Amino acid sequence: MPDLDRMGVTAEALAQMAKTPDPRLREIMDAAIRHLHEFAREVELKPDEWLAGIAFLTAVGQACTPFRQEFILLSDVLGLSRLVNVMHDAKGREAAGTETSLLGPFFREKAPEFAAGESIAATDKGGEEIILFGEVTDAEGRAVADAEIDIWQVDATGLYDLQANDAEHMDMRGRYRTDAQGRFHMRTVKPIGYSIPMDGPVGQFVQKQDRHGMRPGHIHILVQAPGYRELVTALYMGDDPNIGSDTVFGVSDSLVVMPRRGQPGAPRADLPAIRYDFRLSRLAAGESGGRVGADPSQMMPAAE
Amino acid sequence: MPDLDRMGVTAEALAQMAKTPDPRLREIMDAAIRHLHEFAREVELKPDEWLAGIAFLTAVGQACTPFRQEFILLSDVLGLSRLVNVMHDAKGREAAGTETSLLGPFFREKAPEFAAGESIAATDKGGEEIILFGEVTDAEGRAVADAEIDIWQVDATGLYDLQANDAEHMDMRGRYRTDAQGRFHMRTVKPIGYSIPMDGPVGQFVQKQDRHGMRPGHIHILVQAPGYRELVTALYMGDDPNIGSDTVFGVSDSLVVMPRRGQPGAPRADLPAIRYDFRLSRLAAGESGGRVGADPSQMMPAAE
Repeated sequence: MPDLDRMGVTAEALAQMAKTPDPRLREIMDAAIRHLHEFAREVELKPDEWLAGIAFLTAVGQACTPFRQEFILLSDVLGLSRLVNVMHDAKGREAAGTETSLLGPFFREKAPEFAAGESIAATDKGGEEIILFGEVTDAEGRAVADAEIDIWQVDATGLYDLQANDAEHMDMRGRYRTDAQGRFHMRTVKPIGYSIPMDGPVGQFVQKQDRHGMRPGHIHILVQAPGYRELVTALYMGDDPNIGSDTVFGVSDSLVVMPRRGQPGAPRADLPAIRYDFRLSRLAAGESGGRVGADPSQMMPAAE
Repeated sequence: MPDLDRMGVTAEALAQMAKTPDPRLREIMDAAIRHLHEFAREVELKPDEWLAGIAFLTAVGQACTPFRQEFILLSDVLGLSRLVNVMHDAKGREAAGTETSLLGPFFREKAPEFAAGESIAATDKGGEEIILFGEVTDAEGRAVADAEIDIWQVDATGLYDLQANDAEHMDMRGRYRTDAQGRFHMRTVKPIGYSIPMDGPVGQFVQKQDRHGMRPGHIHILVQAPGYRELVTALYMGDDPNIGSDTVFGVSDSLVVMPRRGQPGAPRADLPAIRYDFRLSRLAAGESGGRVGADPSQMMPAAE
């Protein structure tokens, strides 16, 4: 191995990885090495700064638990999650599907099932009761019957159930199904804006950047039906003061809503309602249906 | 927040970080975001690939213990540690200091102190006994008296003491001091080549890349003296079969040595000897003396 200069190290690293059998892993790591090294050269990364970065990533990894995915949170505040989301979304949008948003770190598999009209709030912690109704259709507007719609959100204190670190307890999340006409009718409380968890390394990092760390109030939504592209999205409350500065870059204009009374077709008139119709696009042959996010309890490495 | 496209996400993320009070953190994160996003765009990173990356980084973080720094190992196999090292080294080389190499993940503070001629091997596990001698000088060749020289290496089984996961036990590491003429005389066993730890996420990753994961046999060296740039380097055994393909890119031609008998000036004639003289460069005013590496036990986040 010759004496390596600042460009030579990169060439040597690329050469040593060039035999990677999986062509996609080879492609990804080739690009990762080039961009990582170019970053270090651009800023002339110093040993103590490198060490601070190692310590930070170590702390992020150590903060992960079955109830908390701190690396997804880091990806979120760096805009990477949204970028992956936007690129994935581009295909769905071509087929006129609903715009997507972030799954975030608080999704859980197997939320309780509810009948139309029931509320996901297991206990009354206050908050303004609202309904969410509409239809699930395909890109041509044809009803999709028996689609599963998962919703989850913070309670009136601004916390997700997972933040109680209790695997047994599920609240403010549930699964509904569309009827034969593709219609759904859910009940919840209007979600308030909240801060991302600020007690971990990512929260401290966001504070060092003088960012408010707030997300505007929103309802997470995951719609699934056989043969369709899984739709991961969220609806954002239009009157939230941080609607224009979401700290994880999740908001899009087409996903901003306001609950109001007197909506045509609302299943009940005594509560403010959000009407939103979800359009699913067909899954292309061989297409990856992977979602941008995961249940934290599924993401921990197996114990040795 | 407008609908974000694949470039718009980056602009929005940069804008949200633009208020970072610390100018150096702002500069580093601005570059980090641009390169990270450009990487994701270049490879069109897909949700399931993104998730595999999150799971990998989580596993790396969870593998860190007070005895093992898996993130430093990752940085090493990606060539990042060596790149930071080379950039840091460039300044030292201008002043004619000895070339540096990686500190690696197995350095520990406060190794045992030895007198000249004593051996760092606490127990006899076999291996070929050798001596290492020479002088520590400044860039002009003047002796540096009372410099501290830390050395550490694997034992005859190819393992560092830390890999026994025992905080009390130190072996195959020690600190010596130069005499009034800047001379030192150490005794050890010839280090054998060894594999980086392959039982963790980084080892699995290297295997997926079809890399051998081997480092050529070497002795780690850290030289410190007041007023001089800390010298972190290593001496590599010239007859090692992997001398040309070190998996962490640490080898440089000027650091390749071979123990042999009959060296002029050797303090004893009955053992093969390596003669190596270390040249220290003066620390510039206000210069960061940070090293590329750290004691793993110092790198764990504080328990909550």
